[in-house]
Amino acid sequence: MSFLPEALTALQSDLSKLPGIGPRSAERLALHLVQSDAGSVRRLAELMVAAREKVRTCAVCGSLTEASPCGLCTHPNRDGSLVCVVERPVDILWLEKAGNFRGKYHVLGGRISPINGVGPEDLRIEELERRLGVEPIRELVLALATDVEGDATSHYLARRMAAHGVKVTRIAHGLPAGAGLEFADELTLSRALDGRREMS
Amino acid sequence: MSFLPEALTALQSDLSKLPGIGPRSAERLALHLVQSDAGSVRRLAELMVAAREKVRTCAVCGSLTEASPCGLCTHPNRDGSLVCVVERPVDILWLEKAGNFRGKYHVLGGRISPINGVGPEDLRIEELERRLGVEPIRELVLALATDVEGDATSHYLARRMAAHGVKVTRIAHGLPAGAGLEFADELTLSRALDGRREMS
Repeated sequence: MSFLPEALTALQSDLSKLPGIGPRSAERLALHLVQSDAGSVRRLAELMVAAREKVRTCAVCGSLTEASPCGLCTHPNRDGSLVCVVERPVDILWLEKAGNFRGKYHVLGGRISPINGVGPEDLRIEELERRLGVEPIRELVLALATDVEGDATSHYLARRMAAHGVKVTRIAHGLPAGAGLEFADELTLSRALDGRREMS
Repeated sequence: MSFLPEALTALQSDLSKLPGIGPRSAERLALHLVQSDAGSVRRLAELMVAAREKVRTCAVCGSLTEASPCGLCTHPNRDGSLVCVVERPVDILWLEKAGNFRGKYHVLGGRISPINGVGPEDLRIEELERRLGVEPIRELVLALATDVEGDATSHYLARRMAAHGVKVTRIAHGLPAGAGLEFADELTLSRALDGRREMS
């Protein structure tokens, strides 16, 4: 005989499939939920379903939005000549939090990864080329990951986009803010040295 | 203008109220959910509501159950003369996982805590006394926390239950399994010494 009610173990099992939620956290969450106020549980369940139903992908930039094209694509004060290329919708969030980018975005939907069977045709690269044809884009800022696949994808994009006569830049790599040299790995340090700039 | 869709931030805000889920995890979960398969999101939402509706408290022992009295209280092979007293329903889970307790349980619903305004009358102590009158209970095993409030509650219960002629014991305190002395705090070590037993 299992001690826990079946409804509880079923919930726990589904919760443990969420990212960052292990079996122990799932158990804790499930126990919390069955002991919470019934109204707040129903509310959370409704918010989940509503969010999943309402939130979709912007047909232009690929970000998460309730209306397509999204608020970033249609915003009058964003610089349409500058487009930052990211891997995933969530990357836009981090960049927006940084707060100093005033251009628009383009979500690739991943990066080229032969080992996972992801080629250029699986990414939103043609959509980007289409945008180059209709929008006044002058510069693409690549903000992909700094690992091998991210680097490969950046170089592939730089070559392919150069054919369209657009300037392609990549965000700087170097020491993270607030960190001493002892916390940086060798590759980060070597890139920080390569990317050194004259102090004015 | 906020970048994230409203449905997403509403979900994130509610998720961050769950125990152990900080704002960052909530954001990650919300983003995961809106990008998941719609069916699995609906399923999770339904499981949450169903668990909350089905799971209730056993009228006898106070554990979480779908049927009251619960499977533990009605189980034919559990020793009804031995009742383990715990603070919360989830504590039963840990003890059942340990697997060597064959008696029944009683959930207090907390511990005496004057600073939080919790007195003996707020706990399920009268329910326990009622059980002593109708069930063949010979021994109460107290398995409360080992902090100041848990200790005080254990001592209060021991005194009050002794008046009913029942034997009151408390689970042993000492070194956790697999830990060296260097990982135990002073109180744990002092209790481990006090609780020493002759080796046979």
